Amino acid sequence: MKDISKAKEARMLIRNSEWEGTTVGKVPGYVQCGLLILPFSEAYDFLVYCQRNPKPCPLIEVTDTGAPEPRLSAKGADLRTDLASYTVYREGKKVEEREDISDIWREDFVAFLFGSSLTFDAAMKRAGVDWPSEVWIFETNIDTVPAGKFSGKLLVTMRYLSGEDTIIATQVTARFPRNHGAPVHIGEPGKIGVKTSSPIYGKPVETIPEGVMPVFWACSVTAQRAAISAKPQIAISHTPGYGFITDILESEVSLP
Amino acid sequence: MKDISKAKEARMLIRNSEWEGTTVGKVPGYVQCGLLILPFSEAYDFLVYCQRNPKPCPLIEVTDTGAPEPRLSAKGADLRTDLASYTVYREGKKVEEREDISDIWREDFVAFLFGSSLTFDAAMKRAGVDWPSEVWIFETNIDTVPAGKFSGKLLVTMRYLSGEDTIIATQVTARFPRNHGAPVHIGEPGKIGVKTSSPIYGKPVETIPEGVMPVFWACSVTAQRAAISAKPQIAISHTPGYGFITDILESEVSLP
Repeated sequence: MKDISKAKEARMLIRNSEWEGTTVGKVPGYVQCGLLILPFSEAYDFLVYCQRNPKPCPLIEVTDTGAPEPRLSAKGADLRTDLASYTVYREGKKVEEREDISDIWREDFVAFLFGSSLTFDAAMKRAGVDWPSEVWIFETNIDTVPAGKFSGKLLVTMRYLSGEDTIIATQVTARFPRNHGAPVHIGEPGKIGVKTSSPIYGKPVETIPEGVMPVFWACSVTAQRAAISAKPQIAISHTPGYGFITDILESEVSLP
Repeated sequence: MKDISKAKEARMLIRNSEWEGTTVGKVPGYVQCGLLILPFSEAYDFLVYCQRNPKPCPLIEVTDTGAPEPRLSAKGADLRTDLASYTVYREGKKVEEREDISDIWREDFVAFLFGSSLTFDAAMKRAGVDWPSEVWIFETNIDTVPAGKFSGKLLVTMRYLSGEDTIIATQVTARFPRNHGAPVHIGEPGKIGVKTSSPIYGKPVETIPEGVMPVFWACSVTAQRAAISAKPQIAISHTPGYGFITDILESEVSLP
């Protein structure tokens, strides 16, 4: 019998403002998702964008228009209150972070939930893969496949791994196609246009340490950025690190 | 260097009406797709339906509205002429089969290409899995996840395999998540509501032969039927057995 009590409990704490900090590494075993909310007028093109770019934008669920319940991934949950922090963008500009979006929810909102590397991080740790806790996000020079007004460069996360761990990490993450899957690049950052001195997230890196190699995975901030660059009237995302905890078990979405 | 000459050549023969018969087992190594064309007014709900039902409806490509070229899976191809047989439905009723849809193509058409079990059949054969060439399609009692006006029961294909081959077949097909993936059921047809005496496609089966077991995979006719049951003004699909040959190599879409 599938046990979803831990996920429900965590969502309740978040809903009641009794949760402290981010969800990184919390409630292990359950798939955590990134969130993006758009008005229905933008939803078709954005859905096609995700279909065309499954590595950075692996869709776990698309809600019914106006429905705040992600009934397929977390029955009874409420996407207006069950994330600990939301970021609101208007016309492509960040306007605020908040803990609850009930009062700005609209009947034409569609919520997109994305698989996240938080899921495979845990699987890599279980397989003994080790890396410094620091994670970076970089822009590459690789174009995503556009759809309507949505387009942009592929963004990637970077982790430093030993050669041995890189082999294991590639195999482990390939089993999670709905959470970015296998790396998109291993080695020389410049090959994919990454400037390690200018990260989007994380501290600038001047030189790569001896004995490790940089390994890059597609990152769902790609989707968020493509959406916001298109300057929709309003867009709401999770604040980085504050994921949505689903009832889906990690083991359900991993391949043999 | 990826060689796509065989796929291009096959499409050219089809376009010029020089192709004989179905595409079953033809042009091995390339992914063949099922096709469904709908007006844009139906496309959003149908796309959400596919996202919610990835096993029967694994989307390989969604074209830009009005564009007959599936530029991501077969650059230069034309979906109005490059399938050997199309079936046209109006208001949910089949009205004709034809070899070319150029004269009924509309600027608001969206084409959906689906992964097909034709892809994993070849992989199973390579792995030594053997079954009588007869394949059936049945309705199950399993509901797909609805989206807007699209809904319906899951349809499955059935193949007879030995116990040993069932194990190999399960592993092989699990590597093709974009072509229906692992079986949805093995054994007693009644468990998923299948009446073997009433197939949707294939000859009625009264008794299952000794020494083999029925193995069931999700079937993309599910998507086609859900679309047509919603009675759209017009829908166009490939005629069963007449797939669209893409430039995508089977090896590109299979997992390790």
